[in-house]
Amino acid sequence: MSFQEQNQQQSGQLAVTGRTRHRRLREQGSTEVADLDAILRAGFVCHLGVVVDGTPMAVPTVYGVDFATRTLYVHGSVASRSLVQAPDSTVCVTVTHIDGLVLARSVFEHGVNYRSAMVYGVPRPVTDGDELLHGLQIVTENCAPGQWEYAREPSRKELAATALLALTLEEASVKTASGPPQDGDGPDGELGLWAGVVPLRTYFGAPEPDPALPAGIALPPHVAALGPGGSGS
Amino acid sequence: MSFQEQNQQQSGQLAVTGRTRHRRLREQGSTEVADLDAILRAGFVCHLGVVVDGTPMAVPTVYGVDFATRTLYVHGSVASRSLVQAPDSTVCVTVTHIDGLVLARSVFEHGVNYRSAMVYGVPRPVTDGDELLHGLQIVTENCAPGQWEYAREPSRKELAATALLALTLEEASVKTASGPPQDGDGPDGELGLWAGVVPLRTYFGAPEPDPALPAGIALPPHVAALGPGGSGS
Repeated sequence: MSFQEQNQQQSGQLAVTGRTRHRRLREQGSTEVADLDAILRAGFVCHLGVVVDGTPMAVPTVYGVDFATRTLYVHGSVASRSLVQAPDSTVCVTVTHIDGLVLARSVFEHGVNYRSAMVYGVPRPVTDGDELLHGLQIVTENCAPGQWEYAREPSRKELAATALLALTLEEASVKTASGPPQDGDGPDGELGLWAGVVPLRTYFGAPEPDPALPAGIALPPHVAALGPGGSGS
Repeated sequence: MSFQEQNQQQSGQLAVTGRTRHRRLREQGSTEVADLDAILRAGFVCHLGVVVDGTPMAVPTVYGVDFATRTLYVHGSVASRSLVQAPDSTVCVTVTHIDGLVLARSVFEHGVNYRSAMVYGVPRPVTDGDELLHGLQIVTENCAPGQWEYAREPSRKELAATALLALTLEEASVKTASGPPQDGDGPDGELGLWAGVVPLRTYFGAPEPDPALPAGIALPPHVAALGPGGSGS
């Protein structure tokens, strides 16, 4: 992290770089670290932008963030393959929440309400056993809080078969769009057409026990807390 | 499309290429065109994998597919910027549906149930006015069926300000994971731990009228049909 970046993060502001400068009008950019963190906390699946064999890929995978060290852990073998080919390449980790469809009077003003964070950086494969365990804990807890304590921890052999990347939260672009359509004031407002937002909601349904589960094993409270009524991705 | 690819698509099978060959065990790959189409039909937001200024990006944007011509239309200016820089570059369009969290007895067997399609190809910027209109209709109808007929169509000026890419559905990788965790049979099954799937559900909530909407404009049936109770992304 450069001094400037460090400075800006301490002030609660993200550093603005060539690729994180906001260009478009309709969407709202944010340089607040708090906004970045909120988007990352609200999800558990990201799309990893990497180049593999010369082709850009957007690969869905699970992630988690250690906010104490500001390290983002990304799970997956595709990412690791790309790193073997080009160890010092920048990747992009995108977390997107779709909040609703914006139905305007005119097709042109249609849009999507969303919150999105794109984190850039050169990832580091996690090879140290302790950090692998820690990173897996972060990812697991981000998916299902309480599950790390509950489930059997990985063995040494299982850890060795786990591919995990670490990325420092240094450079990120945060964009959001919210609110109603914006063509109510002009001539399109006179068309007599309905306009508004159709919200999109994501949540966990009722847990479905493994058919192989023996009788008498109760649903643990931390899983019951996920849904329904718990928070989604 | 090569002859081989054409042949395989006519047989309902996707061509297997170096980057669409399935490598992992836990996930199930599919070469059925029907599976690809079902995943594309079930969503309206994709993540576009492109290289911009030398950096891979995973950019969320809306899309739609003309299944008659097997053309995928992707909306957005970032994609277009990347094309200006490198007009013959391959991009990746990823559509992902997260269906649930797989909570196993062991952390190692944890996973996510999902359906994902990664479409590869060299995109073509849509510049012809008629195709722009057609492509926008495909994208709009994919987001909200019935909305194209209902809303005001784009003017010539608005069309000129619309960035749309077209990608032929030739090469794609389809992967899904479903079902319960798989560690019920081994020694972990004896741990007495709960295991199962917590399904993740996405749907449209009740439409929220634009506060600027004059009284007396009824919610059109095609918007009411979206949610609640309609299908999500």
